[in-house]
Amino acid sequence: MENIELIPNNTLLTSTPEEGRQLAVKMARLIIKLTQPDEIERKKQRLLYAGDPIMLLQIGKIVAMEFATVAKANNYWIK
Amino acid sequence: MENIELIPNNTLLTSTPEEGRQLAVKMARLIIKLTQPDEIERKKQRLLYAGDPIMLLQIGKIVAMEFATVAKANNYWIK
Amino acid sequence: MENIELIPNNTLLTSTPEEGRQLAVKMARLIIKLTQPDEIERKKQRLLYAGDPIMLLQIGKIVAMEFATVAKANNYWIK
Amino acid sequence: MENIELIPNNTLLTSTPEEGRQLAVKMARLIIKLTQPDEIERKKQRLLYAGDPIMLLQIGKIVAMEFATVAKANNYWIK
Amino acid sequence: MENIELIPNNTLLTSTPEEGRQLAVKMARLIIKLTQPDEIERKKQRLLYAGDPIMLLQIGKIVAMEFATVAKANNYWIK
Amino acid sequence: MENIELIPNNTLLTSTPEEGRQLAVKMARLIIKLTQPDEIERKKQRLLYAGDPIMLLQIGKIVAMEFATVAKANNYWIK
Repeated sequence: MENIELIPNNTLLTSTPEEGRQLAVKMARLIIKLTQPDEIERKKQRLLYAGDPIMLLQIGKIVAMEFATVAKANNYWIK
Repeated sequence: MENIELIPNNTLLTSTPEEGRQLAVKMARLIIKLTQPDEIERKKQRLLYAGDPIMLLQIGKIVAMEFATVAKANNYWIK
Repeated sequence: MENIELIPNNTLLTSTPEEGRQLAVKMARLIIKLTQPDEIERKKQRLLYAGDPIMLLQIGKIVAMEFATVAKANNYWIK
Repeated sequence: MENIELIPNNTLLTSTPEEGRQLAVKMARLIIKLTQPDEIERKKQRLLYAGDPIMLLQIGKIVAMEFATVAKANNYWIK
Repeated sequence: MENIELIPNNTLLTSTPEEGRQLAVKMARLIIKLTQPDEIERKKQRLLYAGDPIMLLQIGKIVAMEFATVAKANNYWIK
Repeated sequence: MENIELIPNNTLLTSTPEEGRQLAVKMARLIIKLTQPDEIERKKQRLLYAGDPIMLLQIGKIVAMEFATVAKANNYWIK
């Protein structure tokens, strides 16, 4: 597979929910990068996303799904 | 990453389902803010959402997904 | 947040699956109300939903997701 | 809420996966009935669904979600 | 309900992940068959699916959801 | 069923999250291959995906769902 690191630091474990949420966002973005490696194209598309409510909502869904996995992996950061 | 706090108070734990539901709504909104930092643009889009049944339903899906994670983190607020 | 009660009676616990399903429907509707507070506008949209198969199916998805959470919270009403 | 029984026999428990799958289909259909009580209108829409690949796929998603909940409630019918 | 067997062999248990994945695909296809019993119509639609990236991706989502249920039922085939 | 291997090495177990993520991507791609066996057609479609933000986001959703299953199968790679 195209050699893009898909899971930063190769772990789902983070110390806080905030870090976990940011990991979920990164994971979602890296899949977009995997399918569209051209950074200029991706920047153009991000502007499209930002201005299109339907696309914004699609991003929200992906992050929600990725975060569900990250949160479970971290046992919801319950000490 | 753009320095927007994505998880208010950096915790998924709330004292009641109602607070958990509101957290889920906030989490969904903060991802939209992350992708579209311009508040005026976001306000315009919210008017679009409110008037468009398909978009309203997309918001419903995101909140349902985020709430599933928050509810699980709080063990469904079962005492 | 706009002061709409998002979780009726602030609990996910119900005595039967039927009540749990109805709670899931209410939870989905309350998120639509949160985003579109205008009741007349919502009534107009409900007529749109009822006549549009794609929108009907989107409602089905949201209820399925909310019900998954409510059912789990009630341990599937297994005595 | 409109008095339509949303969960046949008010239980998620079935004796086999096949019955569980059929329950999931019924649950999905009852939500459509809840939003569109007019049977003639629903029959018209079912013809639309049957002829439209995108709508067929949306039904597939709803049934998959409802079945995930029913299967979990029945502990995957593992004896 | 139309007498189509929706769960082949009335079980979610398979001996390997590969069989589990194929079961998930069959389960997804059987719901399409339930809604569109006409085989010629379904074959026409499959050609449509195969040529339409958006529809292909919708199929991917359904299979992913069904497989999540099948995999859980088989405890991820962990011996 | 068309004899395409849908789960590489017939296992969901991987040694790291990165490998698990790549497996999730492969699983998603193999379902597209199952529905559209023609490689030239698939390559054309991949170019479409890469240039279309909505399709890119749909891929993100599928990978997120498949990864949720793979991560759970590997107990989130927690030692």
